[in-house]
Amino acid sequence: MSGPLASWNDGNAKARVLDFVRSVTTPGPGFVDPRDRIATFDNDGTLWCEKPLYIQADFILRRWKAMVEADPSRAAGQPYKALVENDRAWLANLYDHVPELVRGVTEAYEGITTAAFEDAVQEFFATARHPTLGVPYTSVAYRPMCELLDLLRANDFRVFVCTGGGRDFIRVVSESMYGIPRENVIGSGPTLEYRDGEVYRTKGVEQPIDDGPGKPVHIWTRTGRRPLVAGGNADGDVPMLESARFGLLVRHDDPGREFAYDTGAERALAVAERRGWTVVSMKSDFATIF
Amino acid sequence: MSGPLASWNDGNAKARVLDFVRSVTTPGPGFVDPRDRIATFDNDGTLWCEKPLYIQADFILRRWKAMVEADPSRAAGQPYKALVENDRAWLANLYDHVPELVRGVTEAYEGITTAAFEDAVQEFFATARHPTLGVPYTSVAYRPMCELLDLLRANDFRVFVCTGGGRDFIRVVSESMYGIPRENVIGSGPTLEYRDGEVYRTKGVEQPIDDGPGKPVHIWTRTGRRPLVAGGNADGDVPMLESARFGLLVRHDDPGREFAYDTGAERALAVAERRGWTVVSMKSDFATIF
Repeated sequence: MSGPLASWNDGNAKARVLDFVRSVTTPGPGFVDPRDRIATFDNDGTLWCEKPLYIQADFILRRWKAMVEADPSRAAGQPYKALVENDRAWLANLYDHVPELVRGVTEAYEGITTAAFEDAVQEFFATARHPTLGVPYTSVAYRPMCELLDLLRANDFRVFVCTGGGRDFIRVVSESMYGIPRENVIGSGPTLEYRDGEVYRTKGVEQPIDDGPGKPVHIWTRTGRRPLVAGGNADGDVPMLESARFGLLVRHDDPGREFAYDTGAERALAVAERRGWTVVSMKSDFATIF
Repeated sequence: MSGPLASWNDGNAKARVLDFVRSVTTPGPGFVDPRDRIATFDNDGTLWCEKPLYIQADFILRRWKAMVEADPSRAAGQPYKALVENDRAWLANLYDHVPELVRGVTEAYEGITTAAFEDAVQEFFATARHPTLGVPYTSVAYRPMCELLDLLRANDFRVFVCTGGGRDFIRVVSESMYGIPRENVIGSGPTLEYRDGEVYRTKGVEQPIDDGPGKPVHIWTRTGRRPLVAGGNADGDVPMLESARFGLLVRHDDPGREFAYDTGAERALAVAERRGWTVVSMKSDFATIF
């Protein structure tokens, strides 16, 4: 297959995306000035695979493992205790909950420069592999979604990642994986401090984090506009999709090629129906996933 | 005159700018990947005139005047008392101090949507005129600096405003005055809140404000890079210029065509000499100012 969205099956979702892009770029009542063509996409579960655990959770677990190996006395306290004891109930917070994950990363990397943090992320992506797909994490972006980003850029959209996870984590791979320059990555992050020519990560978490109602706030501070197109896959994306003209919701319903789960997306799916968002079935709408 | 920087006089400053741009865009040891070509410019006193008072100070004084006229009992308390009594000592804080100004704007526009704030700023720029130059504020950008922005963009730089003043104030005119899209405006702002499909300004001020050591922090959060080129005019720009490869400092030394003042730039001028920043004399280096 060729043309735009080559890895999408013909169907309702593909047709609605193509129709919308045509309507805002064709002179007439639906036309939108190129300056206002902003598109924002959630990352985990929307642009790349987020199961069986957030990629950033894997990153931080490896860090904690190294820390407790370097100093076994750490195993007396959390989070190291949970890791050593494989306390799944405790770890589930990190696997599934964005605020806990963001805080975990921030605390584990407190006091280093943004450049040193980037080195640690680079090393992670150079070596870590997805636990079930068996490929490097840099290969778990959804090909159809990358084609959607291409289509939007070809139509003069500026495309942003808007992740509840760590902005400075995603930036390291956003250019190579999505063609999204690092200045177009919006996300959660630590508080920062400048001294002696360097920017240092400090202990706090910038508020609000870039999830739920924090997403439209971050999008405003970063772009000064509402998104024309927004894509997400979970309840934390509802406010961002509500604030967009065209909302797209990725549904994970393909246990064979990816994962099948609606947990954490129940409200999003209900709102999608009410508001007429375009729900993308990974099973039916994606000819290829990776 | 024609060619790049047509409104600049030939001289050391112009030659250094042109040499630097040539060095980073020419294959060889000084070449810089286009992805890393980020330029950041302070706004007040660097891209537009900041005397006899910050343009944003004029904006907020008019707002307060309207508020005290609508309800004269307000004159019992500040800031209205200072305004009614023309208390210059009190008002000097607003004329000259960025943090007080940012807080003043935030408090006066608490609780409205970002869209309603934009309407108020639009109306201000449509009617207000510079008190001594006698032209609309939209005409007080420095023409030579706009030519510098054009030169950088023509050489694949992404150009950002990085203002200690209000981000959402500058965004309203950044596209028409500087050709800088609103997503490339970095600056101070209020805390924000999303509800019912709208982003509301709330009472706080986002920390740190985008001045002094806050500038490299904001530049990192917004771009994920250090600036390759940075331009400023005051002590609050020192950390931003320190973190750039090429620093440019505008010196206000032309009392006939603009204003002459080094107050608030004493440290910047001293550091410029030590670090070899390019000091631009408005009197000698600018053939035309507006």
